[in-house]
This record gives sequence, C-alpha cells and structure tokens, in this order.
Amino acid sequence: MLEKLKQEVYDANMQLPKLGLVTFTWGNVSGIDREKGLFVIKPSGVDYDDLKPSDMVVVDLNGEVVEGEMNPSSDTPTHTYLYNHFPTIGGITHTHSPWAVSFAAAKMDIPAVSTTHADTFFGDIPCAPALTEAQIKEAYELNTGKVIVDEFEKRGVNPDAVPAVLVSQHGPFSWGPTPAKAVYNAKVLEVAAEITYHGLQLTRDEIHVPQYLLDKHYYRKHGANAYYGQNNAKSKDHAAHI
Amino acid sequence: MLEKLKQEVYDANMQLPKLGLVTFTWGNVSGIDREKGLFVIKPSGVDYDDLKPSDMVVVDLNGEVVEGEMNPSSDTPTHTYLYNHFPTIGGITHTHSPWAVSFAAAKMDIPAVSTTHADTFFGDIPCAPALTEAQIKEAYELNTGKVIVDEFEKRGVNPDAVPAVLVSQHGPFSWGPTPAKAVYNAKVLEVAAEITYHGLQLTRDEIHVPQYLLDKHYYRKHGANAYYGQNNAKSKDHAAHI
Amino acid sequence: MLEKLKQEVYDANMQLPKLGLVTFTWGNVSGIDREKGLFVIKPSGVDYDDLKPSDMVVVDLNGEVVEGEMNPSSDTPTHTYLYNHFPTIGGITHTHSPWAVSFAAAKMDIPAVSTTHADTFFGDIPCAPALTEAQIKEAYELNTGKVIVDEFEKRGVNPDAVPAVLVSQHGPFSWGPTPAKAVYNAKVLEVAAEITYHGLQLTRDEIHVPQYLLDKHYYRKHGANAYYGQNNAKSKDHAAHI
Amino acid sequence: MLEKLKQEVYDANMQLPKLGLVTFTWGNVSGIDREKGLFVIKPSGVDYDDLKPSDMVVVDLNGEVVEGEMNPSSDTPTHTYLYNHFPTIGGITHTHSPWAVSFAAAKMDIPAVSTTHADTFFGDIPCAPALTEAQIKEAYELNTGKVIVDEFEKRGVNPDAVPAVLVSQHGPFSWGPTPAKAVYNAKVLEVAAEITYHGLQLTRDEIHVPQYLLDKHYYRKHGANAYYGQNNAKSKDHAAHI
Repeated sequence: MLEKLKQEVYDANMQLPKLGLVTFTWGNVSGIDREKGLFVIKPSGVDYDDLKPSDMVVVDLNGEVVEGEMNPSSDTPTHTYLYNHFPTIGGITHTHSPWAVSFAAAKMDIPAVSTTHADTFFGDIPCAPALTEAQIKEAYELNTGKVIVDEFEKRGVNPDAVPAVLVSQHGPFSWGPTPAKAVYNAKVLEVAAEITYHGLQLTRDEIHVPQYLLDKHYYRKHGANAYYGQNNAKSKDHAAHI
Repeated sequence: MLEKLKQEVYDANMQLPKLGLVTFTWGNVSGIDREKGLFVIKPSGVDYDDLKPSDMVVVDLNGEVVEGEMNPSSDTPTHTYLYNHFPTIGGITHTHSPWAVSFAAAKMDIPAVSTTHADTFFGDIPCAPALTEAQIKEAYELNTGKVIVDEFEKRGVNPDAVPAVLVSQHGPFSWGPTPAKAVYNAKVLEVAAEITYHGLQLTRDEIHVPQYLLDKHYYRKHGANAYYGQNNAKSKDHAAHI
Repeated sequence: MLEKLKQEVYDANMQLPKLGLVTFTWGNVSGIDREKGLFVIKPSGVDYDDLKPSDMVVVDLNGEVVEGEMNPSSDTPTHTYLYNHFPTIGGITHTHSPWAVSFAAAKMDIPAVSTTHADTFFGDIPCAPALTEAQIKEAYELNTGKVIVDEFEKRGVNPDAVPAVLVSQHGPFSWGPTPAKAVYNAKVLEVAAEITYHGLQLTRDEIHVPQYLLDKHYYRKHGANAYYGQNNAKSKDHAAHI
Repeated sequence: MLEKLKQEVYDANMQLPKLGLVTFTWGNVSGIDREKGLFVIKPSGVDYDDLKPSDMVVVDLNGEVVEGEMNPSSDTPTHTYLYNHFPTIGGITHTHSPWAVSFAAAKMDIPAVSTTHADTFFGDIPCAPALTEAQIKEAYELNTGKVIVDEFEKRGVNPDAVPAVLVSQHGPFSWGPTPAKAVYNAKVLEVAAEITYHGLQLTRDEIHVPQYLLDKHYYRKHGANAYYGQNNAKSKDHAAHI
C-alpha cells in the first residue's frame, strides 16, 4: 500500500546524509496521504545504507502501525501529533544537525538576520521550551509535538510561513507540503543557524532584518505574486521591470 | 546566439557547487558581450545537475530577455544595473556563501587583514547599506545594484581594484573581467571572510594590513609589473632578484 | 590466533578515517577477548591505507606482546590499564579528533547540553586532570590510564553509562562493549563537543540538561526498557502509546 | 636533472590539495639536494590538476633558475633564504591554510596547548613580525625569509625542533628533512591552529602545556629514544614497560 508515498519518503530520507544533515541514523522523514489519513515513516535506527523503500512503515493518525515489518521511528508520536494539529503539512523531518542543535542547547530562537533565512522562513525560527519532568514522564515524544504546537499557537505563528522549530535541549523539526520540501527546509534551517551564529559573534548590535525585507523575500518565492524560479506566472514580466 | 559566451557562463556557474559556494540553487553567474550590449545569465531556480549551456538566457542592457525559454535569474536587474554602471567588468557572480553572508548579516565590511585578501582585493570589501523600505518596494533587485554602485562612488573605490561587495542583510556579489574570474573572486571573498572572522575573534587589536602591504600584494599579481604566475614579463627576472 | 577479533578490530580502526576522526595515523582501536585475557590493537604509526587485519598485534593483560610482527600502538599501556580496571568494556578507541581535543586543551568537561549527548552519555564527559611531571616520567601511557580510572572512581561515574573521557592537554578516549561501539562513541563524543562548543558561545546561561532528561534519553536507548531501534521488545508497543 | 627529487617535490605538492591545505594555486613545496646545492620548486600559479613532475623548476642557492621552462614560485627567494640559513632542512612548504592564516592575521603565536601540537612542535609556533615598508620595498620575498630566520635566532628556537612559523599578516611556512615531511608539518600546524583557536575561545585560563609534557611528547616521536611507530629500536620494549 502507498507504494508511491513510500518511495517519496524513502527518497527524502536518503537526502539527509547527502545534504550532511545526519550522523549515523539520527534523522527521519515522514510523508502523509491526507485522504487516507495514513502516513509513512522511516523505521527506527536503520542505517541509511541498508534502507529500502519497502522498509517504510505505515502509521495511522492514532499512531498505530498499519503496515510494516519494522518498528517505526521512535519519534513517530511527535510526527503523529504534528500531522493532527498542523492540517496543511504533507511531510515532516527531524534531524540532529549540529548548528541547529547548538541553538536548541542554548534555548535560543534562530533570529532572521539575512535573506538566506527570509527566503524560506517568514520570521524567527521559534525555540519551543524544554519539556517539563511531568511531560517527559507522561509521554515524551507526543509531548514534544505538543510543546511545538503550543508554541506556535502562543506566538500566533503560521506553520506554513515558518515551517520549522527547535525544541529546547533537543533539536530541530521541519515540515512542508511534501517530504522533499520538509528536507529542503531542514537544510535551510541548518544553513541559517550557521550564518546567524557567526553574525551574532561578529557584533553586539541588533541585527534582525526588518519586516518589510521579510515580506519582500518571502513573497518573492511564495504565493500568488512569487517570481523566483520557472513556475510562476509573474517571473518573466518581472525581469523586464527595471 | 552567443554560443561561446553561453558555454563560458555555464562553465562558470558549474564552478559554484564545485567550490562549495552554493546550497541548492542559491547562486548565479552572468557574462557580457560588451560589443553587442548583451549578457548571458543562469535561469532562475534550476538545479545545477539539470543545467545545460543552452538553458542560459540572453538579456539586453535594458534588462529585457532577448533569447531563452526559461526565466532568467530573479537577480537579473541587479546584474543589469552593475553592467551599466561598472563599464569595465565582464562577468558577475552572486552567491549566499555562508561566511560572506555572516558579515552581511552583521552589516560589516570584510577588513583586509592578510595577504590572502590583499592578493585579490586592494582594500576592505565594502558592505553596502541595507535597502530602505521605499527602495525595496519600488524595485528591489534594481535598487540592490544601485546601493552597490552608490557605495563604491561614495567611498571612491575602483570596482576593478576591489571586485566584490556585500549588501547588508543579504550577501555577496563579485565581478571580474570574465565570468570565470568573477567566480574566482567569489571564492577568495569567502575564504577571506572565514580567515577574517577567526582573526577578529582571536584579538581585539586593530589588525588591518598597512597600505604598503596592500600595494605590494595587489601589484604582485595585477598590472604592468605583476610577476606572479606564468604570463608576466617580469616573472623570471624577479626570481633572480634576491 | 583471534582471527575474528583481529578482523573486528581492523574494521573498527578503518571506521576512524571514514568518520573524519583521524588525521594521518593519530588514532587507534583495540578489542578484547575476555575469556582468553588477550586484546588486539592497531600497530603504531601505520597508515590506514596500508593496514591489514593480519597487522593487528595481540597483547596480554600484562601489556606483553603475544603475537605480531609490528610494534603495537604506543598507547598500548593505556588500553591495558583500562581493560584491567573497567572489567565490563570490550573495546577502546583513542583519537585526536579536534573538537574533543579543544575541550581537553581547555581542561574542561563536555557538559551534557542536548539529547544528542544524552542519547549516548549519561551525564557530562569528564576531563581527567593532566598528568604530573612525576607521573609522566614514571610511566606516561600507563599513568594516562590511571588518571582516567581515578577520575571515574573519584566522581563515582559508571564507565558503562559514560563511555568516554578527556585527558587534560591530550585528548579523548572512548570505549564500549565492542570495538565498533567504542568507535561509535568516539564519533558521538566529537559531535557532542562541536555542539556544546557552539552552545557555550551563544549564551552565558547555565545550559545543562536536567537529570530527568538524561534519564529519559539514556534509557530510551539502553537497558531493559529501551525502545529505540529494531532489537528492543518494547519498541513496537511504544509507537502506539500516544 | 634531479629527476628523483622532481618526482618527490611533485608528489609533495600534490598532497596539498588532498590534505585540504590549498585553495586554487595558493601553496608550494620545494626540496633540496644539499650535495649539489640545488633545489626544486613548483612553478608559479599553475593549477594542481595540470601540474607534471617535469614542470618543476631547478634553482640554485643564489636563487637563479638553473633548469625549467616555467617561472618558479614567486616565493622562491623565501625558500632560497631559508635553505641558506637553516642548513639542516631538506624541504619547505608554504600555504595559505585558513586556520594558520587567522593566527598570522592576529599576529599571534600558536601556543602549544595539547599533545597534538607537542608531538610535532617542541614549543609554540612563532609568529614573525610583519615586514616593514622598507623591507617590503627592498626585496619582499627575500625579506620574508629574513624575518623568519631573525625571529628564530632572536628567540633561540631550533628550526629542527619547531619546524614551522607564521609570518604576521601573511601565513605559514613549514619545513622538514624532506619535502613530504614539510607537508606533514604544514598539516599538523593547521590542525594545531584549529584546536588552539577553539581552546582559546573556551577559557580565559592560561592553557600552555608544561615543558615536561613537551619533552615527553616530542622525544616520544623524535631522537634516539623515540618509541612511536615501527622504526625505533625502543618501540617494542616500551609496550611491555607497564
């Protein structure tokens, strides 16, 4: 079942080592079929070299395994929670990419300080609070999803506009309309963290980009008036508008 | 048309991933035929793996597409503006290389602190100011070219002697007599930014190199008395002058 | 003799360059056969490209070479001491991986600041004190083992729960139930050092993770209730517990 | 002439890109035949991909080209000066490796803070002063050699025991008994700079290793009582001395 989605999720998982985002098996990607209410996720702790599309595990939105010989990622409850509460997303990525984890260890948002960030993230990447002892003991991975969703709600951030988060003391999660786009966003997050780290060491000035630059760069690539790339109606017009 | 220049621009674009200067599609190189008043530029948002010489787009100095099936880089108006105002340059490169972007995020010049920098850049690499809200709304990419040219004019810097710039909150542009040389300068800029970052963390002393060292290193590689490499009349003489 | 263990130790040694943990020949892995009381270790100063399984040297627990044409690693007395005093370990790795050595140079523990660390190390990675002049002159490599064991005893740290150490001014040692696991732990140590370094530069706040998070992450992967990966009885159950 | 030495110098030059020590053509290695009083050096500004053993240029100890179609490295006068004043060395390497250049930009010695450094360098790696305007104008490359030799003499440092230097505002030179060993030392210098940089950011404590540790590590690998590697009489004995 879901052979096409399994292939897509497999391909997205295999991008993680190619993009330098994982050490050993420390990452996972899932993708959802919204019509069927089922998602497909990498099995837990399997080497990328050994992974096959048929190893992907099918899970329903209650977190129950529907098909698959192997155990799904131990982060499956986090994915389940995010799919249930962010209804527009189609794929999720979790890694321990080192620049992003450094900000998570410091419990700091990744502030938007350049257009590299703003092209993908419409504002700071939030750092959700660390789980409390009670939350960890009750249901660790599920509550990891909960602190993420609560933080977006509390801040009034749209997860489609800022498709990533850090969880304090832990690391990054990203998402997107497809598994491939979730991986893309995981890479941008890591590059943005690297750039921002160095920018913050160079100066003690406030270096957030202004809202109007966020607007410009985000809408250059997203929405009805986007003109970056080959698939936007406005692209050709724009080049001439100088 | 311009088949030779298309190949040259294609080759220069393909150097960007080889030199570690781009993530995904975040970079572009163009080259100009000054006699015809036409330049050739990478199409927007195309993967380097999929790129072919015939994909290159031909644009005139009004920024109008003259030939090409694909949309040109969204940064085309910046290239157009630079070609119009820096009449001696033959190629332009734009990347989001991370060390350079870190300085742009911090809105800092890259000071000339070593001969690695001075061999290519005859002084600090300027950081042009961030665009104002009005400049962004009016014509973002064109005004990106304008703040660059204005900054060089205001400082009295010769773009042939300092063939690169940062734009605050955004990133680096470099140029040169050819597309290949523009890419070379983009790499030197990135290495210079890396070295300078670490030098600035090691000490709080002023570490600019003096003007006479800039003179020595720049003219060792450039101009009538250059003696570095194989194509300078003075090279062989020099080795014996000890 | 010990052909299977020699192959295993050879394979583990060859992982060191693949994981980016060694420059030149600066690393070694050993593995022990506890029943026979013999361990197998890399010869001293041999290029990884030239290494063969049959080059591995067999040493007894008095540190005497039992079989092998080549000199064993100069760190052999350290390995011997550790095998004698940490009776549960089956393999040892020593490298000069640069992030770990930076902490050793600064004579600092690597504090547990993220789950990346906590998944493998059940607390801070101790930095053992530098050897005194007398210790160095008496028996340098043996006393390197001694300061490690003394530090674990003094702190009451279980070497199975925190399977790595730094020696001040020198660098990291790691261990595990097998040579392959000792190398795995050497890599996690290096990644944890990289992440922690950057976390410590980002903030002056105290960023240790709390004990309950250490408990959660360590026991998620270790012990009777582990549920990460494919070989734990509890794994499948867990995914459904949301 | 000197075909064997040309091959040796060619091979050593080709190690520079493999070890990640050069960008573009920014590095050179030479080797000397002390009996003939001639040395062999890389030609100036030639891509490593295009380099052939027969391109190597033969130069005498007056710095005159004796054989070769191409211009020798523009740094030839520095090599000449060093061969004339450090009579025991057999090969020289110059690179712009970025960690080393960062210390040169900051005009700082690389302090010996770990055994990784002490295994190769018997003390701090000196940073020679920047050339004065008069020295640059008179004979830049020759005086680069002179400030190096003067600094070693002023400090009373033995160039065989500390086989590398930084020149302020410029970068590293290293040397050794052979061209290959000079390249090895260039790599150790770069790794030591990387480690030391991070150590210095982690703590404000004084972190120099003590003299007795320098003694131990240097003589473990060098001289009559060396026991590291396969070619030392003492190696096998040592392993048993625990």
